[in-house]
Amino acid sequence: MSSSTLLSRRDLAFLLHDWLDVTRLTERPRYAEHSRDTFDAVLDLAAQVAAEHFATHNKAADATEPSIDGGRVRIIPQVKAALDVFARTGLLAATMDESVGGMQLPHAVAEACFAWFQAANVGTAAYPFLTRGNANLLLAHGSAEQIDTWVTPMVEGRFFGTMCLSEPQAGSSLADITTRAEPQDDGTYRLTGTKMWISGGDHELAENIVHLVLARIPGGPPGVKGISLFIVPKVLVDGDGRLGPRNDVVLVGLNHKMGYRGTTNTLLNFGEGVHRPYGRAGAVGYLVGEPHQGLAQMFHMMNEARIGVGAGATALGYTGYLKSLAYARQRPQGRPVADKDPTAPQVPIIAHPDVRRMLLAQKSYVEGALALILYCGRLLDEEKTAPAEADRARAHLLLDLLTPIAKSWPSQWCLAANDLAIQVHGGYGYTRDYDVEQHWRDNRLNPIHEGTHGIQALDLLGRKVTMRAGEGLELLLEAIRATVTRAWKAEGFAAELAGPLGSAIDRIAVVTRRLWGSGDPELALANAALYLEAVGHVVIAWMWLEQALAVEALGSPDGAEGEFLAGKRQAARYFFRYELPKTAAQFDLLESLDRTTLDTRESWF
Amino acid sequence: MSSSTLLSRRDLAFLLHDWLDVTRLTERPRYAEHSRDTFDAVLDLAAQVAAEHFATHNKAADATEPSIDGGRVRIIPQVKAALDVFARTGLLAATMDESVGGMQLPHAVAEACFAWFQAANVGTAAYPFLTRGNANLLLAHGSAEQIDTWVTPMVEGRFFGTMCLSEPQAGSSLADITTRAEPQDDGTYRLTGTKMWISGGDHELAENIVHLVLARIPGGPPGVKGISLFIVPKVLVDGDGRLGPRNDVVLVGLNHKMGYRGTTNTLLNFGEGVHRPYGRAGAVGYLVGEPHQGLAQMFHMMNEARIGVGAGATALGYTGYLKSLAYARQRPQGRPVADKDPTAPQVPIIAHPDVRRMLLAQKSYVEGALALILYCGRLLDEEKTAPAEADRARAHLLLDLLTPIAKSWPSQWCLAANDLAIQVHGGYGYTRDYDVEQHWRDNRLNPIHEGTHGIQALDLLGRKVTMRAGEGLELLLEAIRATVTRAWKAEGFAAELAGPLGSAIDRIAVVTRRLWGSGDPELALANAALYLEAVGHVVIAWMWLEQALAVEALGSPDGAEGEFLAGKRQAARYFFRYELPKTAAQFDLLESLDRTTLDTRESWF
Repeated sequence: MSSSTLLSRRDLAFLLHDWLDVTRLTERPRYAEHSRDTFDAVLDLAAQVAAEHFATHNKAADATEPSIDGGRVRIIPQVKAALDVFARTGLLAATMDESVGGMQLPHAVAEACFAWFQAANVGTAAYPFLTRGNANLLLAHGSAEQIDTWVTPMVEGRFFGTMCLSEPQAGSSLADITTRAEPQDDGTYRLTGTKMWISGGDHELAENIVHLVLARIPGGPPGVKGISLFIVPKVLVDGDGRLGPRNDVVLVGLNHKMGYRGTTNTLLNFGEGVHRPYGRAGAVGYLVGEPHQGLAQMFHMMNEARIGVGAGATALGYTGYLKSLAYARQRPQGRPVADKDPTAPQVPIIAHPDVRRMLLAQKSYVEGALALILYCGRLLDEEKTAPAEADRARAHLLLDLLTPIAKSWPSQWCLAANDLAIQVHGGYGYTRDYDVEQHWRDNRLNPIHEGTHGIQALDLLGRKVTMRAGEGLELLLEAIRATVTRAWKAEGFAAELAGPLGSAIDRIAVVTRRLWGSGDPELALANAALYLEAVGHVVIAWMWLEQALAVEALGSPDGAEGEFLAGKRQAARYFFRYELPKTAAQFDLLESLDRTTLDTRESWF
Repeated sequence: MSSSTLLSRRDLAFLLHDWLDVTRLTERPRYAEHSRDTFDAVLDLAAQVAAEHFATHNKAADATEPSIDGGRVRIIPQVKAALDVFARTGLLAATMDESVGGMQLPHAVAEACFAWFQAANVGTAAYPFLTRGNANLLLAHGSAEQIDTWVTPMVEGRFFGTMCLSEPQAGSSLADITTRAEPQDDGTYRLTGTKMWISGGDHELAENIVHLVLARIPGGPPGVKGISLFIVPKVLVDGDGRLGPRNDVVLVGLNHKMGYRGTTNTLLNFGEGVHRPYGRAGAVGYLVGEPHQGLAQMFHMMNEARIGVGAGATALGYTGYLKSLAYARQRPQGRPVADKDPTAPQVPIIAHPDVRRMLLAQKSYVEGALALILYCGRLLDEEKTAPAEADRARAHLLLDLLTPIAKSWPSQWCLAANDLAIQVHGGYGYTRDYDVEQHWRDNRLNPIHEGTHGIQALDLLGRKVTMRAGEGLELLLEAIRATVTRAWKAEGFAAELAGPLGSAIDRIAVVTRRLWGSGDPELALANAALYLEAVGHVVIAWMWLEQALAVEALGSPDGAEGEFLAGKRQAARYFFRYELPKTAAQFDLLESLDRTTLDTRESWF
């Protein structure tokens, strides 16, 4: 399989080099060993492995989902084969320190690399996705010994990782988790409880599974303030790293999903007595950091995972776009409005304006989303390596604000892109002979997991916008304003777009003040989802104006390069003409402090 | 299974009686044998059979799709059992004349009856859906003998019907079909060709399958003007109605779809020589009506089918809404913004404004769509039975104009409702343990079949709006204006909604003139899809204002009735506040005669 229908290598080069100028990062000590050549080589490697080992079993993994056979999870063998190849690329540790076997790549580059795997096979890519997040959390919060014991084998591809948050009675509401962790004399804990929706929660793809589990130490405060974080391995490991007895983590069942079927999704029991490690009841767990800090620690992983979910949604949208584009170029059907002579040959459907509309919409969504994801990666690089403390702090705040948008916007609009990819295919798109229906089913998970759309909306408007007296939002508006100012000065095409974007950020400022000026948090948050969506659209318009400026800087080359830049201009134009104006109605509603949803009584339904 | 999560019996009563006053139709000779009691009895029967025989195997038919076994199509036995019960209800002939075994029910009532089956199991309901359309076409265009031979056994449930339009090279473009029909000395024809996407194209659910096939008689004009319509049965029938030899209609393969899996969807070969009926090559076909009238005749079935597709989309949206509502009432999760005390019990998620937003959105979509579908049924009744010729003509024109909207709007927005139904369920909604993911997958077919969204848009703006010098559109705008005027006079709640709807219809008038005033059909049609969507939203707003007026007429009852009416008011309010304003951006774009999609070159992608 070719990588050319997964992502666009040219677009990645444009975003990473022509726009974000990631090669300049090699001036910083952390990335000094790298160069544009090493970045390009690793991107090429990712594209190749994704196409040859991941895309090739995407359909098979969907058709034959994981099943339980004699208590063991059976997964088609191509998944393990692909993950073994992935492990050898070293990409799991793309951004990690050399000291733990990492590549010390910039996050922007690493995110682009990983997007190839998500585009090729989001279900199989979920295993390293979760493992990477788990390892990064332990690198940030674990002890040296914990890193040595658990992170090193994850980097080597021998252990995989999970995050165990939800319970049957506590999905979005983490305050309500009840899994208990009883302290033992030897400093370890024994956990009992049930965890739900655990992706990668059981399988035989790796020697061991490192669960990161949220649980309560008895006597702690109620709610989220009493949650602690534990390492709970499937198989216990001795002091020399050798695998020991089975821990009491037991697979209860697999969820049968509509999509994302290649990823096992499990219900797990901890410490229910099936196994008695070292002769005692309870699943053995090791506290990470201090007690009662679990939620804050887990957010380290969740923030990364949320951007990663946005990246996955983007990758699925992107591959669907490229596949529908390829289909539209080769499928003859119908004739132009101006010439309906039935004896003339049919034209490829890309000749029809409505098909071009559906392709432009997809292009504007997926390339806009990819720009945002890579921009977030770039912010992470700034947060970690900018020479000036103020720049690091600024990047941190801005990233914090953008995280719910980077999670939700692609999850909504790259799913919409997949819907259009089906539509371009017509009836064929509805069959399992083509890829796009699976992309749509797979992508539908993204507005749900890692915090639903509604949760992201509350996070943005209820927390991120209000934190530090609105400093984060002010930073965002300043950043957009700076782009608008550059666009005015650039004149030409980019200047056309500056006006509408400038007006949109003014509206964000006014609407936000109005909402929080109401003095009624319930009213302010009643339409948080619309706020998230409207601000998200403005942010993507910003990404398009940024791209338009980068296009202008590249002049007017001939040939394929000129066509590529013309396509970028046209997609930017599409987004500003067809998409950004949608926000007006949303801002109007928000500004009116509409009470419709608040006033609706349950008995009225 | 209870019918209470399929459709709302109260809403149907409201729409049919309190609003459309279908019982007044019994004053007309055709419906004189009926009464409110007979209408209610048949609705109850439909609800019961749908719940007990159709809903019960909806999941099973999805999980085990039709397969080919030794050349025969194998379908789970519950499908035939349900269809046998359906046949005994007589509902296939709900609207047909008593002389052919019909019930002579008003179309509005019959559409409501059939919606129960579509809500319960759209895949199984597709067989009578297609058979009904086939029979109605023959009743309109077939000879007495053809009606006797083919329609009678369809009404009795012994034969099923299909429509065979598409071919591998001709899906949306019927001008390009190539199936040939050679005239024979005995007045019959012999057909050769391949037909694609034929739903119900092969199975053993009935004794015979009556295919209605579009084909070309050699020597006819090219394009759609040379298409004729033929009856091509799977099994030939002798003069006494006895089944004879196998006709040369051969199953080549089944399509494997994302949803709607209970309905076989086939590739069929006609006259390829597998069978040689009466010793000669070619599939035996019987011309319906005159040569070269096939497309016009088929549109009789297609117009009915298009409204039926809208009805199916509505039914799927409706049941998803009711199921997500039931879930939201019983699932505890989280706490109100105003009281986050983690020791307090969790609240049902319907208490969260964002969940109420998702429920209100669904309610406004599905009840708005159902109103439109039943209104179309009511127009069909006017078209057929209004005493005054002018009223019949008016109904005909208005229905013609509304058909693409009745097909497309529910296909887009009741699919969006299913998306929200999944979202309300959270992770559970993504699993196959709940119904809503299947509804979403099933519903995704509706914007594709019976003319894609883009085809409907061209039909509305390119044909329906321009026909008879715009008379159809003028009728629509007048009808909406009349409602607006009544609302102004009614004062109170309905009057609040009159202003925005009045403005919206003014915009339709201006935008339509501007588009066609451009003198450039390609430019006028470039954004036809946006026109369809914007006009569709205005039409549904109209349906909500109509409902609001019906609500006002019912006064202020206490108890459940009062709650029901309050819910109607709130859904109307939601649609006018959250949905109708979306059209402003669409009308702006249309009014600007935007050339973005036209100017985009293929090489730019």
